[in-house]
Amino acid sequence: MIHGGNVHKYAREHNISVEEIYDFSANINPLSNEKLKNYINSANILDYPDPDYTALKSSISEFEQIDQEYIIPTNGGIEAIFLLGRYLDVEDITIVTPTFIEYERAFREKEISFYPLKDFSLDVDDLISSLKTRAVLLCNPNNPTGHVVKKDDLLKLLEYTYKRGIYLIIDEAFIDFIDEGSLVDRIKDYSNLMITKSLTKFFAIPGIRLGYILSSNKELITSIHRYHMPWSVNSIADHIACNILKDKEYIKKTKDFIKEEREYLYQELLKIKELRVYKSYANFIFFKADEELDTKLKKYHILIRNCNNYRNMEKGYFRIAVKDREKNKYLISKLREIYGNN
Amino acid sequence: MIHGGNVHKYAREHNISVEEIYDFSANINPLSNEKLKNYINSANILDYPDPDYTALKSSISEFEQIDQEYIIPTNGGIEAIFLLGRYLDVEDITIVTPTFIEYERAFREKEISFYPLKDFSLDVDDLISSLKTRAVLLCNPNNPTGHVVKKDDLLKLLEYTYKRGIYLIIDEAFIDFIDEGSLVDRIKDYSNLMITKSLTKFFAIPGIRLGYILSSNKELITSIHRYHMPWSVNSIADHIACNILKDKEYIKKTKDFIKEEREYLYQELLKIKELRVYKSYANFIFFKADEELDTKLKKYHILIRNCNNYRNMEKGYFRIAVKDREKNKYLISKLREIYGNN
Repeated sequence: MIHGGNVHKYAREHNISVEEIYDFSANINPLSNEKLKNYINSANILDYPDPDYTALKSSISEFEQIDQEYIIPTNGGIEAIFLLGRYLDVEDITIVTPTFIEYERAFREKEISFYPLKDFSLDVDDLISSLKTRAVLLCNPNNPTGHVVKKDDLLKLLEYTYKRGIYLIIDEAFIDFIDEGSLVDRIKDYSNLMITKSLTKFFAIPGIRLGYILSSNKELITSIHRYHMPWSVNSIADHIACNILKDKEYIKKTKDFIKEEREYLYQELLKIKELRVYKSYANFIFFKADEELDTKLKKYHILIRNCNNYRNMEKGYFRIAVKDREKNKYLISKLREIYGNN
Repeated sequence: MIHGGNVHKYAREHNISVEEIYDFSANINPLSNEKLKNYINSANILDYPDPDYTALKSSISEFEQIDQEYIIPTNGGIEAIFLLGRYLDVEDITIVTPTFIEYERAFREKEISFYPLKDFSLDVDDLISSLKTRAVLLCNPNNPTGHVVKKDDLLKLLEYTYKRGIYLIIDEAFIDFIDEGSLVDRIKDYSNLMITKSLTKFFAIPGIRLGYILSSNKELITSIHRYHMPWSVNSIADHIACNILKDKEYIKKTKDFIKEEREYLYQELLKIKELRVYKSYANFIFFKADEELDTKLKKYHILIRNCNNYRNMEKGYFRIAVKDREKNKYLISKLREIYGNN
């Protein structure tokens, strides 16, 4: 399966170090937390992780303002998705596409219908009128398009699915980059709602692997507790999360930084007339260009995400992460070189 | 599910720190590798783990003297077992008991038969004559009994199962503590053989989560590659393993240390006439005592593993890990106090 962020493969193939790569292909916050090393070094790795993850759940509970009983910590957001794929008791599901390609693998044992976005934006009434499955999954903000569904629309979808006994799964892996739009405050009252989250992107720890499921659905929680393997979250991920989720200063800094750099990158991309750029609300930008752009950028060891292996996606669409100003400038300068706008 | 090593729960309940506990309940090598902090601090956590785990497989390959294509790195040995439970294409399995209780959970979707050991030792001819399932699983050295199956017996079982198309799964989580008995050298030629391993015990990193499956079974390897989630091993576990598996000095030191301390502990336990002590070849010792011994030892914040939740096990059996001399002495002195032998 091809993903962004496989710098290891690129480094091996080009015989360079990972550090020499300009990786715009993985949607990771470029601001690393300065206290990360301290957190890592104060983790207790000489005992098994707490199988109940009591401290971790308490930190997530505080961060999300949600009861601990609705939290299931996971080995990255990806495990949250795969656990739902395995333990959600439904036979079929609708996936709103194009979107993160792992959802299909996670729900491979279900009958999957795909609901394609219209020009990469969601018409909730149309989705509702075409829903024929017992579950529906969408990513908000959506990966790779950056599109955000308005909260009113989400609430309409939530009410509709709740009344019909349809599960609504929302992957909020990128929600912390935006100020509103989360449905976490509805978890308690809507047992048909499941939210998956990831610390990977916002907290810039892709190597650490920490995510969680939020749900008040008793059957789901019981199944996972009963059947899932123990200790799936390692002690370092556990300990980092307990600390980093409380770091309000870093959280604010990240939000401000990404907002400013995304706007810079967006405005600069708009100036290149060969690109069709979509407005994004997350930490990445989606655009259409010529089909070979990713290959052309490799000359400069710049990796961008070619979206041609997303479902319901034509060729020529790409996604780039928002990085720091220096790297963003470098990318823009190389794009200008390629398109003769310099 | 109750396991050894849940120091977190005990610490919470008794309002003490984890460090104040004498934890004999988890089978972890007490010798921590001095370079562990360096390994942790030089891991790259700002990129996703290599989804192909190329460097990790290369290190495991060198350590085990086995081709890389037969290696599947996992999120602890526990994930290795759960992956077999999910992706091994059989309907039924025989588990040799008493043994690690998670095997039952991992294979819950199969029809499980239990083959009980006779006085905690394995008669391979008897096992063979009673086998009626398409798979058989045993742990060698066995947890919690410490018993080791002789290599000749294992080879007889391997030949028998191979000829009948029966899968043979051996959990070698504790094999590195002994000098021989591993079937890794047979993986290449026996596609019915699956070995699971863990770095947790020997390398003293229970919080890190690293294990692997060894198998030359193409169907199994293909299924796992096709259906399992990506990035299940985090970057720190990956990086530690790449280094620690090459540390020959630490490996030798651990073997010598455990041998000496196990012998000390064994001899001291033998002197306490109220205990029935079993010869062990791993880093833990199994014995029978009065049913309340674990409760009595809690007065001293000493945790030992009460084996009463193992299948086919009477009450009054316990397992203790081999710790360092100071802690071993402390345990022995408290046992002597309890049994009035001081």
